[in-house]
Amino acid sequence: MKTVTIGVDIGGTSTKYGLVDMEGNILAEGAIPTQEHADIHLFLKDLNANIQHAIRSVTIPIDIKGLGVGAPNGNYYKGTIEDAPNLRWPGIIPIVDLFRQFFDMPIALTNDANAAAIGEMVYGGARDLKDFIVITLGTGLGSGIVVNGHLIYGHDGFAGEIGHTRVSRNGRMCGCGRKGCLETYVSATGIKRTVFELLAKSNAASELREISYENLTAKMITDAADNGDPLALEAFEFTGKILGFALADSVAYTSPKAIFLFGGLALAGDYIFKPTRKHFEKNLFSVYKNKISILPSGLTKKSAAVLGASALICNELNLSTVSTY
Amino acid sequence: MKTVTIGVDIGGTSTKYGLVDMEGNILAEGAIPTQEHADIHLFLKDLNANIQHAIRSVTIPIDIKGLGVGAPNGNYYKGTIEDAPNLRWPGIIPIVDLFRQFFDMPIALTNDANAAAIGEMVYGGARDLKDFIVITLGTGLGSGIVVNGHLIYGHDGFAGEIGHTRVSRNGRMCGCGRKGCLETYVSATGIKRTVFELLAKSNAASELREISYENLTAKMITDAADNGDPLALEAFEFTGKILGFALADSVAYTSPKAIFLFGGLALAGDYIFKPTRKHFEKNLFSVYKNKISILPSGLTKKSAAVLGASALICNELNLSTVSTY
Repeated sequence: MKTVTIGVDIGGTSTKYGLVDMEGNILAEGAIPTQEHADIHLFLKDLNANIQHAIRSVTIPIDIKGLGVGAPNGNYYKGTIEDAPNLRWPGIIPIVDLFRQFFDMPIALTNDANAAAIGEMVYGGARDLKDFIVITLGTGLGSGIVVNGHLIYGHDGFAGEIGHTRVSRNGRMCGCGRKGCLETYVSATGIKRTVFELLAKSNAASELREISYENLTAKMITDAADNGDPLALEAFEFTGKILGFALADSVAYTSPKAIFLFGGLALAGDYIFKPTRKHFEKNLFSVYKNKISILPSGLTKKSAAVLGASALICNELNLSTVSTY
Repeated sequence: MKTVTIGVDIGGTSTKYGLVDMEGNILAEGAIPTQEHADIHLFLKDLNANIQHAIRSVTIPIDIKGLGVGAPNGNYYKGTIEDAPNLRWPGIIPIVDLFRQFFDMPIALTNDANAAAIGEMVYGGARDLKDFIVITLGTGLGSGIVVNGHLIYGHDGFAGEIGHTRVSRNGRMCGCGRKGCLETYVSATGIKRTVFELLAKSNAASELREISYENLTAKMITDAADNGDPLALEAFEFTGKILGFALADSVAYTSPKAIFLFGGLALAGDYIFKPTRKHFEKNLFSVYKNKISILPSGLTKKSAAVLGASALICNELNLSTVSTY
C-alpha cells in the first residue's frame, strides 16, 4: 500500500491537482480551468469529479492520508480564501469546509507562496535547511518565510508578504492601493513596467519596441536579453538591483541561510540572479555578509505548485518524506 | 525554598545584575561599571564577587536555577559576544564559557533587544501573545521578534536587526558603514540628528539652539516638547513618521499582534506614539489594517534589562513564571 496525499493548487487561470507519494512522485495529475464556474460549489463539484477520476486511474493500491491546498490569499488558520483579487469568488470563502463535503480526510490550506516554501523544504532545495525564504515571482511577488523549520503564519495567518514591503515612498502604483511596493518592480508585471519605462526614457533600439504592453511577457524580455537587446538587459539589471537591495533588508528580520527564487522570472537565470546577488551582497549589514545564498528553487518541474500543496499536508501530518526530486 | 534565576545585563556603561524570583520580583540587585576593566577576566571576577555578595544578602532560602545574560552583539547559539562596538573587549568573547568558571548552572546569552523581547513575554505586556515585536530605542534601535511563542534567532543567531533595515538608499551615515539605516533616524541619536537638521533648515526659535550636539539628550528634546517648542515637536513628528512607515513594512514579515516600544525614547509617550501609530496605520497593507497595536513596553521599571536576562534563562529552562509586574 503506497502512502499518498492529494495536492491542489488553485491559481488564477487553472487549478491543478495531483496524487503525490512520499518520494515526491506524482502518480496522477490534471487541471481544470478555475474561472469557468462563478459558483464555488459547482467548481468544487467539478474538481472533485476530476480528482476521483485521477484516484481511480492509479493502478497500484494507495492509502490517501490527506489533502493540501495552495490558493491566493489562503488563510492557514481559518481555512478560508479571503478577497483574492485574481479569483472570481468574492469575499471570504470557507474553502476547507467546502472541501470536507467531498473529502473525509485531514485538509490544510495556505497561500501559494507558503505552499511553495513548504514544497522547497519537503521536496526541494531546502531539505537540509531550517531557516530560509522562498520568493515566488509571478504576476506579483509572493513569499514564504521558514524559521527554525516552521513556516511563519503570524497572529492572523497573513505573515510573509514581502511583495508588499515598500521600495520607495512615492513609487509605482500597486494593486493593493499603495505606492512603491516591491512587487511593482520585481515580478513578471514589474519587469514589464520597467521595460516600458526604459522604452520611454531611452532612444536605444530594442526589439521590444514592437510589442504592446498587453502582449509583452517576461519570457519575451528573457528572449530579447538572449539576443543581446541592451534595453532588456538593462531591465533585468534594474530588477535585480531592486530585489537585491530589498532582500538585504529581509535578511535583517529572520537571518535565513538561503533565499530561493521560484517562478517564471527566476527562469531567466543569470539575467536576474547576477544583479540580485551583486546588489544583495553589497547592501548587507556586516554580520550577514558572505554567508547567505540566493538560489534557484529546487522545484523546477511543472508540477511544483501541486508538490507544494501536497508537502503542506505531509508537513501537518508529520508524514516522513524522501525526496527523489 | 524560593526558586530564583540570576539576570545580568551587560551595557556599554554599566553592567546590572539581579536575583529574580518566578514572579519577577528582584530579591537583590546591583551594578558595576562595564568599562573599568580592559581585561574581560578581571571584569568577570569583579562581577562574580558582586553577584556572590548579592546572593549572600538574601535572607530567605533560595534555589538558583540558572543565569541569563543580555549583551550587545550577544550570540545565542555560540554563547559569544562578537565585535560589540560599545564594549572595550574586541573580537569574539566566549562569554558563556567564561561565566561557567564562576557559575555551575545553566547559562544562556542573547543580545539586549532579544532579552527585552523575552522579558516582555515572561513578565511584561506580551504575556498572552505569541506573535509580537519589541523595538528598543536607545543609542541605536534594537529589535526582538517573537513568532508563535519563540524568539527568532535565525541560522546564525543574528536575526532581528530591524535597526539596520534601510529607510532610504542615500540617507544618513550609519555606524555600520552603510547609509540610511532606520536607527540613524529612530533612536536617541537619530532624533538628535533630526533636531540638528531642523535647526539648520528652519529659522524657528527653539530652546534647543542653546545646546551642543554632544550635550543634547533625548530627554532634553522631550522636555522642550513639553514646553511647546515647535522644533522639538517637529522632530518627534518626523521620527514617528519614519518609524511608522518602517514598522508597516516589518509587519509584512511576521504579522505580529503587537509591537512594543522600549527604552528612553519610548518614554516620550504621545510625542513618539501618536505620529508612529498614525503613519503606521496609514501605510499598512490592507490585510493588516486595524488589528495591530503599537504599545509601550510593559517593563517600565529600572530593572527591565535584568528582568529580560532573567526571563531568557527561565524560558530556556521552561520554569513556570507568574508576573506580578
